[in-house]
Amino acid sequence: MKFICEKTKLQEAISIAQKAITGKSTMPILEGIYIKADSEGLTLIGSDIDISIETKINAEVLQKGTIVVDAKLFGEIIRKLPNDKIVIEQLQIGEDNTIQITCKKSVFNLLYMNSDEFPSLPNINETKIFSIPQNLLKNMIKGTSFAIAQDEARPILQGILFEVNNSYLNLVALDGYRLAIRKEIIDSENTISSVIPGKTLNEVAKILEDTDKDVDITFTTNHILFNLGETRIISRLLEGEFIKYSSLLPQEYKGLVTANKQELQNGIERASLMAKEGNTNLIKFELKEDTLIITSNSQLGKVREEVSVNLQGDEMQIAFNSRYLLDVLKVMDEEEVVLELTSSVSPCVIRNKNIGDSKYLVLPVRLAR
Amino acid sequence: MKFICEKTKLQEAISIAQKAITGKSTMPILEGIYIKADSEGLTLIGSDIDISIETKINAEVLQKGTIVVDAKLFGEIIRKLPNDKIVIEQLQIGEDNTIQITCKKSVFNLLYMNSDEFPSLPNINETKIFSIPQNLLKNMIKGTSFAIAQDEARPILQGILFEVNNSYLNLVALDGYRLAIRKEIIDSENTISSVIPGKTLNEVAKILEDTDKDVDITFTTNHILFNLGETRIISRLLEGEFIKYSSLLPQEYKGLVTANKQELQNGIERASLMAKEGNTNLIKFELKEDTLIITSNSQLGKVREEVSVNLQGDEMQIAFNSRYLLDVLKVMDEEEVVLELTSSVSPCVIRNKNIGDSKYLVLPVRLAR
Repeated sequence: MKFICEKTKLQEAISIAQKAITGKSTMPILEGIYIKADSEGLTLIGSDIDISIETKINAEVLQKGTIVVDAKLFGEIIRKLPNDKIVIEQLQIGEDNTIQITCKKSVFNLLYMNSDEFPSLPNINETKIFSIPQNLLKNMIKGTSFAIAQDEARPILQGILFEVNNSYLNLVALDGYRLAIRKEIIDSENTISSVIPGKTLNEVAKILEDTDKDVDITFTTNHILFNLGETRIISRLLEGEFIKYSSLLPQEYKGLVTANKQELQNGIERASLMAKEGNTNLIKFELKEDTLIITSNSQLGKVREEVSVNLQGDEMQIAFNSRYLLDVLKVMDEEEVVLELTSSVSPCVIRNKNIGDSKYLVLPVRLAR
Repeated sequence: MKFICEKTKLQEAISIAQKAITGKSTMPILEGIYIKADSEGLTLIGSDIDISIETKINAEVLQKGTIVVDAKLFGEIIRKLPNDKIVIEQLQIGEDNTIQITCKKSVFNLLYMNSDEFPSLPNINETKIFSIPQNLLKNMIKGTSFAIAQDEARPILQGILFEVNNSYLNLVALDGYRLAIRKEIIDSENTISSVIPGKTLNEVAKILEDTDKDVDITFTTNHILFNLGETRIISRLLEGEFIKYSSLLPQEYKGLVTANKQELQNGIERASLMAKEGNTNLIKFELKEDTLIITSNSQLGKVREEVSVNLQGDEMQIAFNSRYLLDVLKVMDEEEVVLELTSSVSPCVIRNKNIGDSKYLVLPVRLAR
């Protein structure tokens, strides 16, 4: 194997493929990055079995070949090299299999591993189910992934449901205390319901760019494939049925609160400073016609915040874990938000005032009488 | 106590006084920030006994008084409040001593501690020994503090020597493997030799601003006082004699190497990627007339770097712990640096090519034959 490529291109490709390499695998070969040089240029692959990322870049290939090199060290070497052309060549010196990396006046010789030991990618027959702009999917993942269950009691809740139905894509995550839904129109006649591990999707979100260029998505029985053009990401699906979330959504409400998102968020953030005692994050809402009063107290003192709101319907009191509310408000992007409330023991629905692309549900904290 | 002040001013003052609060003290009162309101405005003090920081800000004082409040919580509250006037008032409700913090529509009630329990500052008769621009002292501290000993075997080496002599201020730190000296002309007829804890000086460096406004320095038998005007920092001195460092500096050399600092630093950084094995950081220098060849190897491979240099004197080979060289190069600010070498077992002196304000010494690693 021998090829010449630009440092910046190679560095970028390594950083993409590396996102699949968690270092948590028991197989040493999976700490490596797979590099193939052929007539199409370079293909780099990183994998931890659950997720595999393959990315291609241009290179002047003088001799074909495949190797696997330690991803961390190789990545650091390439990153530290001057911004210039890099020559990488396979050498065989006695027993040692090394590659020589040359760039200007730097020469590295690095041991490589046998590429035959690298697990092959799942064989996926690519039949696009739908396409979606990269920035939009990235936003949908960020807007739901915080609600994934952290404990392992119900593994299916550690994933995000991808639901394709009636030309809509819904992403849904829930953990028993809150529920997040993001919804977008797509061009697809299919009906799909698959659950993708949250960890995988967080890596996918890092690779998706802030561009409206499409990513093509294919589902198989066990896998999802994100095709970004030069880069393909394959993740396994979680087994099992997702919770029938639509039955959790309240059909009506008794109080409708409209508030400026940032003012509400600031008030809750300040109130929660006093709510950290014992990690309960307990804050209380007192809803009046034009004011929301937020209070909290701990052994060190207490706090009272007032936020201007518009309330249509019943005045009421309700208590929350402030973190659950803040997680939601942080990913909402409209200036005004709406809270739909029924009683102090019923879930609270939070949504943008105008655009119906997201819906959040947070359970209140029941206070002892 | 009751006063009104600007949020930004108060936040800044808290952030300064807080730098003395390490949270490592066993006295709960030292997790607090001392606040005095009187005819001069506000005085805030943070202390962990070793270091005390006092800072003053303007405030409209309506009623005098002193309190101590939990520094972390008070700091977080003030930081999160809107950018406006803040009213702070001492209340007495039953048994609880609280202050009320009001800013726009936010009201916090916070328990305070009895200010009588707060240790008083060392009584220092301020007799300025010398003044020095803040940015210059900041640079001198940053240029030496990396060489402070990390282990506690010789406590005196965990400090930086402040040496005032013949109208010069020298800062010196050493740890048995390397030595750092920074030197500046000052206007002082005094002769002083005091050692200040490195931890203290790192906090001082954070408070010193990038301005050529002077800081006035006073020494007493047990303390040093940095007076920045609104802010005064008092640190205890380390007891004992500092090492007679001047005898460690070589009087002559056999090879004088001139190199571009950045190229040398880049070459060493890349070579050290291969030197991490077993944490030895071992890199080898091979000095030739116009080239420095840097090599290193580990179980994973090897590296060879070439750096263009100018060598006057003997060609030679010498090995180093790359971290010690990089620590030095990172704080040097001239484009060209000079290395003075004598043999593979003699210390290497590193200095700027033109300005003689800094001198560094790094011991080589002796290689087994």
